[in-house]
Formats: sequence, structure tokens, C-alpha cells
Amino acid sequence: MTISNDILLRTARGESVERPPIWLMRQAGRILPEYRAIRSSLSGFVELVTTPHLAAEVTVQPVDIIGVDAAIIFSDILVIPECMGLPYELIEKKGPHFPNTIQSEADVDRLISGAAAAEKLEYVFDALDLTKKALAGRVPLIGFSGAPWTLFAYMIEGQGSKTFSKAKAMLYKEPAISHKLLDKITNTIIAYLKLKIQAGADIVQIFDSWAGMLDRQLYDTFCMPYLNRILEEVTSVPRILFCKGAHFSFPSIMHTSADIIGVDWTMPAADIRKQYGYDKVLQGNLDPCALYGSQSQLDIKVNQTISDFGGKHIFNLGHGVYPDTPLENVKHLVNTVKSYRYS
Amino acid sequence: MTISNDILLRTARGESVERPPIWLMRQAGRILPEYRAIRSSLSGFVELVTTPHLAAEVTVQPVDIIGVDAAIIFSDILVIPECMGLPYELIEKKGPHFPNTIQSEADVDRLISGAAAAEKLEYVFDALDLTKKALAGRVPLIGFSGAPWTLFAYMIEGQGSKTFSKAKAMLYKEPAISHKLLDKITNTIIAYLKLKIQAGADIVQIFDSWAGMLDRQLYDTFCMPYLNRILEEVTSVPRILFCKGAHFSFPSIMHTSADIIGVDWTMPAADIRKQYGYDKVLQGNLDPCALYGSQSQLDIKVNQTISDFGGKHIFNLGHGVYPDTPLENVKHLVNTVKSYRYS
Repeated sequence: MTISNDILLRTARGESVERPPIWLMRQAGRILPEYRAIRSSLSGFVELVTTPHLAAEVTVQPVDIIGVDAAIIFSDILVIPECMGLPYELIEKKGPHFPNTIQSEADVDRLISGAAAAEKLEYVFDALDLTKKALAGRVPLIGFSGAPWTLFAYMIEGQGSKTFSKAKAMLYKEPAISHKLLDKITNTIIAYLKLKIQAGADIVQIFDSWAGMLDRQLYDTFCMPYLNRILEEVTSVPRILFCKGAHFSFPSIMHTSADIIGVDWTMPAADIRKQYGYDKVLQGNLDPCALYGSQSQLDIKVNQTISDFGGKHIFNLGHGVYPDTPLENVKHLVNTVKSYRYS
Repeated sequence: MTISNDILLRTARGESVERPPIWLMRQAGRILPEYRAIRSSLSGFVELVTTPHLAAEVTVQPVDIIGVDAAIIFSDILVIPECMGLPYELIEKKGPHFPNTIQSEADVDRLISGAAAAEKLEYVFDALDLTKKALAGRVPLIGFSGAPWTLFAYMIEGQGSKTFSKAKAMLYKEPAISHKLLDKITNTIIAYLKLKIQAGADIVQIFDSWAGMLDRQLYDTFCMPYLNRILEEVTSVPRILFCKGAHFSFPSIMHTSADIIGVDWTMPAADIRKQYGYDKVLQGNLDPCALYGSQSQLDIKVNQTISDFGGKHIFNLGHGVYPDTPLENVKHLVNTVKSYRYS
């Protein structure tokens, strides 16, 4: 199917475009009253993730309501641990919780992985299929996965953490078991992303949300090889790699084969361009908190951001949009970026 | 009083020394059974902070038990909000909680500040006095304060946060009120550090624990001017400045008048030396999770760290020691650093 607004895909392929495309991490979510209405009618977050027609509905909402240049399938990075054998729940205001966690090699051995695991996530592929139909070619659909380390971290800790010290302790104490688990997760991610693409994803993003807990040595040892394997295997659509907080490994990240590199708000875009030039497509990096300020301040910041990236740029936040962000400012942001024209 | 083991002070002054001195953030705390025994006999953490002879006792414990080259007064960065009029409590496993927070200019106006506030913290100065007597000149005593932004963040949020989005929203929405509050906090910190030095602190550290939530522009606007004011006013002892996660503002931080710059584990020391040379004294930056691994792995990492800093180096972790760290590894670390000799 031809996509009528394909500015995201043209930018992702490195083509010259008239303005930066824009979408927002967590655009399908609590900022929208229409999302909250659906969510409040359900028993929990996981019910929304696992019910294809509802997941598809909330995926399309921000395209209709905010006017973003792409939809991102409503789902959770934790479906991967789930399909490998570790179910999770999402506790309101507390975050994810895993009743069972990985503590030993035997626990790792019990996990299923690869296509055998990923194929179980039929509800995700059904949601993609329904979303594609609902979008009817208006904008591209983004598929995503958590990165191996971030999923590993949740599987060990069983929940979020300020330090992820249990997961890091595993890297230090049991490097062989850690590699075994990361390998199984990686195989599952590869199969999962391929199935997502088959189900209609036009572009994929890999989220390494907890990259910033590590350092360069740990990242080189336990993350980069697995990210590179995913990027070698999943090649049929453009790939966005977003390693939040991994400033220490940015040189390695920039040298992967990822088509687009996500940038969080702590990394000045002008510095990146100065150091690496203007060849790579970058995505980011407005501080989500800038959306709390006045629209006139926001305009200054948005124009500065676009100018700092200087083209080959997908506009996004440096993190997911926070649930209490004023919706009128989110709409204003999207309109501002869409009215921008590269001179 | 002469200090018999003054290697920390000699290093802080930039003198040539035989090995790096070592102390650990949160060395007085849950890693020590002797600390846990005292703590469990009390109603809460705040009772320990506010009872001078007990605070002094736990301050000295790591000098006796672990053999570190300095004591750091047992206290909390949140005594500053408290003396300004915002009392806090520490909830087990949840962290700090403020029954009242700052939400408006009127709230800011109600706060007392400067010497009038700091002088109320007599229990801290008494604890310093008792600690100096108990140390009897064995090692220097470190005093500390939270940095303006970090204290501001707690005073707005009322508790810890994954994003500190409420505190950041205040910076974006109400810059004038934010500056007014930061100014009052800064005046209080200055008075407080001067009183701590008067009570016996031989060196002071400023902790900007939540620096990493901001970006360069916010840090330049809302943090650097206040840090510089503290450093201009508090000059009678060496000053350590530790802005955790502020990699984006590291150039400005390195150019302050701070005598020592703290480095977290995400910043490779070798890169810093390559970029800035070997003149500045640096403190850091072992990943606290490295203490979970084997002692032989730890030795490799410690030697690498010392070699990367290449002198003018105070050995420390890149963050506070985690409560569940094996004590034998902490002792091993201290012994390893103390046996090291610069060639």
C-alpha cells in the first residue's frame, strides 16, 4: 500500500525533505482523553496490550487527534519476557512487576526463545494488521522492541529500579549466564521484529531504556554485540536505535548500521553534528518537560532544536511524553514542527 | 590539630602523593553491621541524623572498620530544606518524604534562609565537634551539602522521582520563582558550609545528585551560577564538586574554582584526562556494582581506574555504596587502593 504522508520514511532513507517529520514516544497514551476513556473501561494495562482491536484503536488516536507523521503500535517492551515464559503485570503508579524473575542458569534454561517464543505474540501481530487497515495508508506504522539489556534488567530485577543493581550484579558476578540470557533475548527480539515487519511495520525502533545505568566497558561487552546482531538480521525496513543515557558509548552507537540514531535530551544535537557531521539521520531530542512551559518558550526551543540538528532529523522528544503534559502544548508542538520549512 | 593521615588533604591541594587516597560515598551506613545495630535501635533515620553522639559514632565506624582515608559526617542533604522550614521524614525502602512542598511564590517567601536558617542545625555542628574529638586527628573530616538544584528538586516534588518532572516544570513555567528559591537555598548552603567548616570540617563536598535530569541549557541557567556563588564564598578548605550525570555540562564544571571534581562511573576517566589534562584533582569513579563481582575482577577494575586517572586522584565510587554490597569486598577495595604505589 502506498503511504500518502511518507515524510518519515523519506527522512529515514536519508532523502531530502521539506521539514522534519514528527512523532512522539508514548504519543498513544495518557495524554489523550480518548485513551484514558478506553483504558478506564478495562481491568488493566495488559488487557489493552493483549486486545488487538483496542490496541489498534489507541495506536491510531494520536494520528487523528494530534496529527503526528507516524503511528507507533501500542504495546509494551515486556511482551518479550512474557512470550519467553516470564509474564508481567503493570501495577498502577508503580510500574511493571514480574511474579517470577531470573536468578540462576536453570531459570535461563527454562526460557523459550527465538521464533518459538515470538510466534506466541499473535495479539501484537493482529493489532498491527488491524492498525494498518485503520490507517489506510495515511502514515507509516512503527514497530518496536526493547533492547536486550533493558529486557534483561527487568527479567532479573522483576520491576523498575533506581540503580538496576541486581541486574548489574548479574553482569559482574555471572558473565557467562548473563551472555546466555542476552543471547536468548536477542534471538527472540530478532524473530519478533521480523514478524512485526511481516505484519505491517514500516520502520522499527529498538529502545534501550536503561542503557544509562551501565558504562562504556559494560556496554561494549553486554550490549553492543547483541544490538549489532539485531541490526544485521533485521534489515528489511529502516531501524531506529535509541539507547537512552548511553552518552559514554555514543561513538559505538553512531557506528552501528542503524539507519537512525535516537538522541536523548541530555545530548546537545549541535555537538553531535560538530563531531560526526550531517550524514546520519538522528531522532530527538526535546526535553519532555519543555512541554510544561509557555507556547512561546516552546517555539524558541523547538526552532533551536531543529536548527541544531540541521536536517536529516526526525523530531521527537528525548524520552516518552509524560502523562500530565498539557495536550494543547503537544498539539502546538506538532503543528509548529509541521509548519517549519528548511530554508 | 595535626592530622596524622593527611593524604586526602595533600591530594586535594594538588601535592604529589604516593597513592590515591580513598573514601566512599555512603561509607557510614548499611554496609556496616555496627551501623545497622545502632539504626535498628532507633525510631527512624532522622533520629540518627539529629542525635549528635550517634551521628558521630556512625561517622567514625568506617574509619575504624574499613580503614578509609577520611570520615564524612553522617547527615542528610535534606537538613537544608528542614532548617528553611520544610521538615522531611525518611520512609523505609521508599526514601525521603516532605509533608509540605513548595508550589507557589508565597511558599518560597515563607522560607527562612541564610545564616538564620543554617544556625538552627546545631545538631549537625555538635556532631562534627564530637566526631573531631573521636577521630583525634587520625583522618580528615568531610562536610557536605546538597547542591541548590538537587535540594530545589526535593522541595518541589516532596519525594524522589524517576523524572523530577514537577521540579523541572517549575523551571520551565516559573523561572523567576525558581531563581528566587534557588537563591534562598544557595544563601543557606553557603552559611551552612561555613558553619560546618567552623565546627571542624577539613574539606567539603557539594552533591548535585539530580544534575543528570537537566540539560546543558537548564544547567547553565539554573545551576552553574549558584554553584559558582557557593565556590566563591566558601573558600577556606578544599571543595569537591560532584554533579552526578551532568556529562553535558562537564566543560563548565571543570572550569569552576572547585578544587576537586567528582566523576560518576559513566564518564571514562581516560577521556577526561585526554581532553582536560592532568592538572585538576578528580574524584571517582568505580561503578558501585563492581563490588558485587569477584575480588580478582575487582582488582583489575581498580587498577584500571587508578591508571586511567593517572594521579591527582581521590579514589571513590561513582555513586554511594549500595546497602547490599558485600563488606569483605569493600574492605578489599580499600586495602587494594591503600597498597597501590604510583610508579
